[in-house]
Amino acid sequence: MADPRAVNPGRTDARRHHDPELRGFASDNYAGAHPEILAALALANGGHQVAYGEDEYTEHLQRVMRSHFGAAAQAFPVFNGTGANVVALQALTDRWGAVIAADTAHIHVDECGAPERVGGLKLLTVETEDGKLTPELIDRQAYGWDDEHRAMPQVVSLAQNTELGTVYTVDEIRAICDHAHERGMKVHLDGARLANAAASLDVPMRAFTNAVGVDVLSFGGTKNGMLFGEAVVVLDPDAVRGMKHLRKLSMQLASKMRFVSVQLEALLARDLWLRNARHANTMAQRLAEGVRTVDGVKILHPVQANAVFARLPHDVAERLQKRYRFYFWDEAAGDVRWMCSFDTTEEDVDGFVAALREEMGKA
Amino acid sequence: MADPRAVNPGRTDARRHHDPELRGFASDNYAGAHPEILAALALANGGHQVAYGEDEYTEHLQRVMRSHFGAAAQAFPVFNGTGANVVALQALTDRWGAVIAADTAHIHVDECGAPERVGGLKLLTVETEDGKLTPELIDRQAYGWDDEHRAMPQVVSLAQNTELGTVYTVDEIRAICDHAHERGMKVHLDGARLANAAASLDVPMRAFTNAVGVDVLSFGGTKNGMLFGEAVVVLDPDAVRGMKHLRKLSMQLASKMRFVSVQLEALLARDLWLRNARHANTMAQRLAEGVRTVDGVKILHPVQANAVFARLPHDVAERLQKRYRFYFWDEAAGDVRWMCSFDTTEEDVDGFVAALREEMGKA
Amino acid sequence: MADPRAVNPGRTDARRHHDPELRGFASDNYAGAHPEILAALALANGGHQVAYGEDEYTEHLQRVMRSHFGAAAQAFPVFNGTGANVVALQALTDRWGAVIAADTAHIHVDECGAPERVGGLKLLTVETEDGKLTPELIDRQAYGWDDEHRAMPQVVSLAQNTELGTVYTVDEIRAICDHAHERGMKVHLDGARLANAAASLDVPMRAFTNAVGVDVLSFGGTKNGMLFGEAVVVLDPDAVRGMKHLRKLSMQLASKMRFVSVQLEALLARDLWLRNARHANTMAQRLAEGVRTVDGVKILHPVQANAVFARLPHDVAERLQKRYRFYFWDEAAGDVRWMCSFDTTEEDVDGFVAALREEMGKA
Amino acid sequence: MADPRAVNPGRTDARRHHDPELRGFASDNYAGAHPEILAALALANGGHQVAYGEDEYTEHLQRVMRSHFGAAAQAFPVFNGTGANVVALQALTDRWGAVIAADTAHIHVDECGAPERVGGLKLLTVETEDGKLTPELIDRQAYGWDDEHRAMPQVVSLAQNTELGTVYTVDEIRAICDHAHERGMKVHLDGARLANAAASLDVPMRAFTNAVGVDVLSFGGTKNGMLFGEAVVVLDPDAVRGMKHLRKLSMQLASKMRFVSVQLEALLARDLWLRNARHANTMAQRLAEGVRTVDGVKILHPVQANAVFARLPHDVAERLQKRYRFYFWDEAAGDVRWMCSFDTTEEDVDGFVAALREEMGKA
Repeated sequence: MADPRAVNPGRTDARRHHDPELRGFASDNYAGAHPEILAALALANGGHQVAYGEDEYTEHLQRVMRSHFGAAAQAFPVFNGTGANVVALQALTDRWGAVIAADTAHIHVDECGAPERVGGLKLLTVETEDGKLTPELIDRQAYGWDDEHRAMPQVVSLAQNTELGTVYTVDEIRAICDHAHERGMKVHLDGARLANAAASLDVPMRAFTNAVGVDVLSFGGTKNGMLFGEAVVVLDPDAVRGMKHLRKLSMQLASKMRFVSVQLEALLARDLWLRNARHANTMAQRLAEGVRTVDGVKILHPVQANAVFARLPHDVAERLQKRYRFYFWDEAAGDVRWMCSFDTTEEDVDGFVAALREEMGKA
Repeated sequence: MADPRAVNPGRTDARRHHDPELRGFASDNYAGAHPEILAALALANGGHQVAYGEDEYTEHLQRVMRSHFGAAAQAFPVFNGTGANVVALQALTDRWGAVIAADTAHIHVDECGAPERVGGLKLLTVETEDGKLTPELIDRQAYGWDDEHRAMPQVVSLAQNTELGTVYTVDEIRAICDHAHERGMKVHLDGARLANAAASLDVPMRAFTNAVGVDVLSFGGTKNGMLFGEAVVVLDPDAVRGMKHLRKLSMQLASKMRFVSVQLEALLARDLWLRNARHANTMAQRLAEGVRTVDGVKILHPVQANAVFARLPHDVAERLQKRYRFYFWDEAAGDVRWMCSFDTTEEDVDGFVAALREEMGKA
Repeated sequence: MADPRAVNPGRTDARRHHDPELRGFASDNYAGAHPEILAALALANGGHQVAYGEDEYTEHLQRVMRSHFGAAAQAFPVFNGTGANVVALQALTDRWGAVIAADTAHIHVDECGAPERVGGLKLLTVETEDGKLTPELIDRQAYGWDDEHRAMPQVVSLAQNTELGTVYTVDEIRAICDHAHERGMKVHLDGARLANAAASLDVPMRAFTNAVGVDVLSFGGTKNGMLFGEAVVVLDPDAVRGMKHLRKLSMQLASKMRFVSVQLEALLARDLWLRNARHANTMAQRLAEGVRTVDGVKILHPVQANAVFARLPHDVAERLQKRYRFYFWDEAAGDVRWMCSFDTTEEDVDGFVAALREEMGKA
Repeated sequence: MADPRAVNPGRTDARRHHDPELRGFASDNYAGAHPEILAALALANGGHQVAYGEDEYTEHLQRVMRSHFGAAAQAFPVFNGTGANVVALQALTDRWGAVIAADTAHIHVDECGAPERVGGLKLLTVETEDGKLTPELIDRQAYGWDDEHRAMPQVVSLAQNTELGTVYTVDEIRAICDHAHERGMKVHLDGARLANAAASLDVPMRAFTNAVGVDVLSFGGTKNGMLFGEAVVVLDPDAVRGMKHLRKLSMQLASKMRFVSVQLEALLARDLWLRNARHANTMAQRLAEGVRTVDGVKILHPVQANAVFARLPHDVAERLQKRYRFYFWDEAAGDVRWMCSFDTTEEDVDGFVAALREEMGKA
């Protein structure tokens, strides 16, 4: 019998169906995986490893995570960001708990009600400017802990960076954590783009997470160059209950977990996370600078990470979309979002700005 | 600025932490990924593809799936088997629905209550011999549709092959489908090891799925050589509602879905699925034959796919576990499960049988 | 053996623990039951009646309900208002559905997350003036039906009268129903105080429910003089699915349902519902008129039913609370709510206004 | 203006629709309310009382409950038995918890999946003889606490008396409690017919609840002569979390709670609970004795409370059902259930036995 593994390593019955040179500005998850991530998968392949998280890669990942997020950190790899958020929020709350969040939060507007439906969580939202909560805004919902008619506010959930591409300062997050803790609430941070925030602030990731009181983190890998995979990182183990079971019952437990963990290791062991994030942020700055040279296009929020929000005539946006993929953020207002990713090139940006200028010229 | 993609493709900051030559008999998800699967990932990488399933690979996958499961088939790639099952069962039921299953079913004993907790599903279980439902067994729970005190039986969920390594014949599944449909119920098939069943029966997968009336299928890729990834395959689109939203709200929607879809394509486009499954089954037959030559070890169920269940003295099992990883199935009874996978070698099997013989000799 | 029923009908081992002459303005559910309701219970007592809704009283109730809400109306008695709302909303939605409501809605702020936790419902809320939705406000959330990242807006839920004591006109509700239906959404009306609204508008209840397109109604009995008990009234049977099972699985199915149904019959067979509601509304008008004569107290919303919202100095409110029970609505702002009920007397109102004047005089 | 309360206390717009002298053997919830219960309602009526449980009657009820169930007992009145069970089980479990129960348990077969759907609870069931769990039977499901693939067994739920009309002895319940507690599990007792069990055992209710280690109790009032109403009685406050919020979010919080509490007081303040239960049990004994004199009818389980299970020819059962209402328990086997209630008379029983004899004579 032939050895089933004796195959040409490059052979596959799959075929290439896309143009690997085509890139747009629609989302950082339109990008593929960084080559170093793919290489890591090959490294972890072969042989047998205990399934469901007791493998060597997941164990080693704990050390890597502790080097970033402190000695108490515990990482629970999961499949995707919604999964990370909903597992984390369940671990932080009782059945009667509620979560205070910005009304632009991904958990509120982009997860098809998964927090409510899977976790039975009540979200208490507040309107914000630029996507950022403050102690004052939190107080609009932080009351009534003893009132059984009200879902009990037990967690404040931030996103860093926010869905509007803005980045909290270290002090802003510290103030929120202090405020929440004084009121007996925990703090969850949705870090789908955490690396971009660290690159933007030019501080280690710990500086605005465990160092200032964040209790649990959703660490994002997919948007920073992984094929898939995120991790719930528990920064204060006393803040959570039942992580292991909650990950399983929320259908986020990978059987061949080594392949999630080794990607996270490849990202975090040295500086790939930062290289990718810095590059994406730099491309967004380049894009913003270019856009500012085009008359009639208004940039909407501070460009602090890898997103540029802009307002332009609706028909221009539509013509431009035929040349480069991107999304309307608020179609009625003519607001669009342009995202840069780890694989965006200077040529991509410059070409896009030129196209924008051209289409605006036809307006 | 350096091109971020201009890296040595083999470079990664991750390190190898395991011995790629070590294999055991604990589970087919202890194995890694087939090299052709890894090669497919590289093929799909690079450039931008629409996220969340509107990519070229997912579109192409539909054609591949239709070639296996008929012109009506619709594939919804998801992350894992529990996810596939719970999405499928929600799509097949109303909020008040119940699912009839064997009391050994994975959805009942191995998913930490995900069907109940995520889907609000009630499971109505029956005891079986060798893990297989029959029309008669189904009837023990199939009644009371009009009685609001009873969760309404709306789906029969089979596993092919079963958790006990047995395989339904084509006629057995047809009889169950006919029986269920006559009573107004739908049929879900948990195909975490569907390929092994097809290899065992030596028929195409369609022969015991869409051809005999199965409505929805959980197609398993992970245990057959993928890194991760399964698909809900809707065989009768009229049988389900809300698949797209249910996948998202159940946290099973991959953003970079191309990387799930291309793995499924690599598996299914030609015969990798069958090569892998046949190999694993053959190894299980070899293992069973070897075990039968060892006095005092009893094989418990018909060996029809890639699992061998056996009963042996508890202390022998424990000593053997120090040499090869495997699980007790029923520790009190001394029952164990030995699984073969796509990468199990003849040497692995022979070495294991020799070790078993040796340890039995010490008993 | 003595006949167990041969007891003195007035005898009971319970004792009176309260002063039956003391009334306040805290809530219409601080009141007890109307004597005619108690009399109805005695009428329905004795003998055996089929449990769980197949009794003569529940059957007769259907006729009574049809006389109010049209020939298609189907009433499902339940225990309480939250139960009525959550059963109704589940019947109107798919698992992936969302409900558009005012951010002051009882379902959002006063039910401890029951819609989310029991029904898995996502609420999409909008800020309103005076608690009333409009087509324009609805449109802030009514979009994205095809976007699986967004919970699908399937229902608009109004409260008549609103939590702020305001009453929609017939035309306002018609406009909302038309708007919702044009967009493929259903309309639920939370009628915890429906009778008060009818009394206020001086039209039959049908005029602003089935006649203008409301699909399902939560009809409130408790606040209008019942001991307990509400009903989900399905106005358009095609708009709902699974009512019978949903009521049971939501734990709202009374075994001795005759005792809920006969109360509803006592309320609705002739005019007790209207007498009670008119009286409560009249008392609120008298209260508002009285309050307007007290300098320094501002009435906050139009007084259209049985609630008066007012703003007064915090210390005055606190002193007044020692004499009459009532609640702060927004303690920071000094806003209070005064409710009248079917048993509020003119003397109660006049005494309260005098006390208010007295306490204001000390300010 | 007329005083709205100045009505003829016996007046009501409702009409009598049933024959108050007709009784059957279908269920103890086919009976109405005991006259002393109705009298108690009148006593609690009038004036204003704080809603949602802060009234004088609910406070007084605590004293009454403590007199029965010990100084630590805390009563939480709810609407119905399913509500009591699901609130209690949620308070005893984490999100990942499971409940071990007999496969005949009401929570498993008669609540339309409410434990699963409302509470996200996984039920782990075992087959029993006569409906009673034992330590050995519990052990079939009590394992795997550390295994995240398995819902974690956290509670054992008994019913006293069982759904098959059998009654645990004091020692049997003590043994189960000890066994459960040794394994870190809590004990819930579904006491929908607790009074009947106490009457049967001729011991106080505490003797087989708090005195032997039951942690939380669902105390049943409806089947023992109340109009509606049960209570979760927490016997060990350290065993539960979040009762107040869980009752509300489970839609079991009555606004005019005085009317539930005063019924419970009327039942429990002296001996109405026992008079009613003894009477129903005595009638069941009389019925069993009568049935034993009829050739060809087999009594199936020990008659220990107010239920008689019997097997008789199917056509006889059907003819008898035309004369007296009762249910098939297992229609295929010809098994029926006959229930006695507080208002069953000796004449009812004797008439029924005569009818049974007559119909058997035609067989």
